[in-house]
Amino acid sequence: MDNGPDAIGIFDSGIGGLTVLRRIVERLPGESTVYLGDTARVPYGTKSPDTVRRYAMACARVLLGRGIKMLVVACNTASAHAVEYLQDALDVPVVGVVEPGARAAASCTVSGRIGVIGTRGTVASGVYERAIAAIRPDTRVWSRACPLLVPLAEEGWVRGPVPEQVVAAYLSELLEHEIDTLVLGCTHYPLLSDIIRAAVGPSVQIVDSAEATAAVVEEVLVAAGIASSGGNAQRTYLVSDAPESFAKTGREFLNHGIDDVEWVDF
Amino acid sequence: MDNGPDAIGIFDSGIGGLTVLRRIVERLPGESTVYLGDTARVPYGTKSPDTVRRYAMACARVLLGRGIKMLVVACNTASAHAVEYLQDALDVPVVGVVEPGARAAASCTVSGRIGVIGTRGTVASGVYERAIAAIRPDTRVWSRACPLLVPLAEEGWVRGPVPEQVVAAYLSELLEHEIDTLVLGCTHYPLLSDIIRAAVGPSVQIVDSAEATAAVVEEVLVAAGIASSGGNAQRTYLVSDAPESFAKTGREFLNHGIDDVEWVDF
Repeated sequence: MDNGPDAIGIFDSGIGGLTVLRRIVERLPGESTVYLGDTARVPYGTKSPDTVRRYAMACARVLLGRGIKMLVVACNTASAHAVEYLQDALDVPVVGVVEPGARAAASCTVSGRIGVIGTRGTVASGVYERAIAAIRPDTRVWSRACPLLVPLAEEGWVRGPVPEQVVAAYLSELLEHEIDTLVLGCTHYPLLSDIIRAAVGPSVQIVDSAEATAAVVEEVLVAAGIASSGGNAQRTYLVSDAPESFAKTGREFLNHGIDDVEWVDF
Repeated sequence: MDNGPDAIGIFDSGIGGLTVLRRIVERLPGESTVYLGDTARVPYGTKSPDTVRRYAMACARVLLGRGIKMLVVACNTASAHAVEYLQDALDVPVVGVVEPGARAAASCTVSGRIGVIGTRGTVASGVYERAIAAIRPDTRVWSRACPLLVPLAEEGWVRGPVPEQVVAAYLSELLEHEIDTLVLGCTHYPLLSDIIRAAVGPSVQIVDSAEATAAVVEEVLVAAGIASSGGNAQRTYLVSDAPESFAKTGREFLNHGIDDVEWVDF
């Protein structure tokens, strides 16, 4: 199935990037999309930068083979390690999730005190600190790795005392720093946004990188003159392993069913 | 570095199998060991049986290249899907962790009511149910996937209210079935054995597959006449990604430091 050179290609190490796809589809319903979840190699967060770059390039090649006009790296770890590398190597525009999230945080904060939560890989990379400092050097950023939030989201364990306590434990240190902005630096975390919002209280703004990324995707399409003129938008889903379980869990992330998931070997 | 044809080869998708290595070394201190953590592809639990078999064979080949005399599949998912396949294909004895754990559970239980906890992949495979039923058809087995326990163990978050509540939530249903034996069907779980023991109370026996597996390894070595006559036991550690982080987290699992971790590409 070829979506023609008119589709937006989106990849993630697994299922989390569907929260980014969801925001892109909400904002740009006329654009066709090809989503690739590299479920055979999930998660990227525990892997080395070199390995992540190799996997990201493999994902990009699969999507380019489907004739995409733009590439969205809907994975924080791959955004941290591979966006510049892909931008240099590929002929289509490449957008990651880190830069848009960092930009949104830099505009949201009043006190200049920003918290970031993400996987161990994303936090260890320091990518949000660097990206935010490049935009607004007058800010301070505190980060916290939250390895339990991905399995909580994938379990659908998104309310009740257990996720509340886990979230409270992870956020307590950040809140002591009196942050006024919190970046959800992992594409799984929007599923837990209700309890994260409750934990941080009304004085902290939450930045959802997925939303910020969808806005940047629109900007880039328009600026490059390659936005779709409308028509019959198609949704294609590719995975490198276990299509059934992707379709099942994906429903939670996308807020609607996924009809057809294609297995690709690469 | 070649450990000669006298080493025991042990592999896992990552770090969890070190709990098995630990028990093997405690029981058989004179045996050299080569441990391989397939950290580039961790975790196996979310992957399809075919993919797991392919990865398991790749791990076995790396270890055979080091001249091992026996192979231990120290990963429940790979034991579920690949042990028979490896036994058919390889010339050295192959031992998984499921069969020894199932055997120990079948001998422990008095009431015949057994609980099993493991990753989603292990539980979905039904491998413990089948293995226990094959030994003692008069038993009943209830299983529960506990996806949060691996990240808890890897975080070192092994005591306090959060892991206690997570463990209690996972075990409540099993305890309603009045089990008298609980199998830790994931090599990470021995790190949480204190709070698991507290949660189930004194009337439930806990079966640690790692311990049971080490006992079977000894039986097989002796039966095949290939037990080491003693001497200078060597410890070799191989990983497919991120050797530093393996060495760091591995200390918790092994209860002593790891000097040297070698990266292998396969």
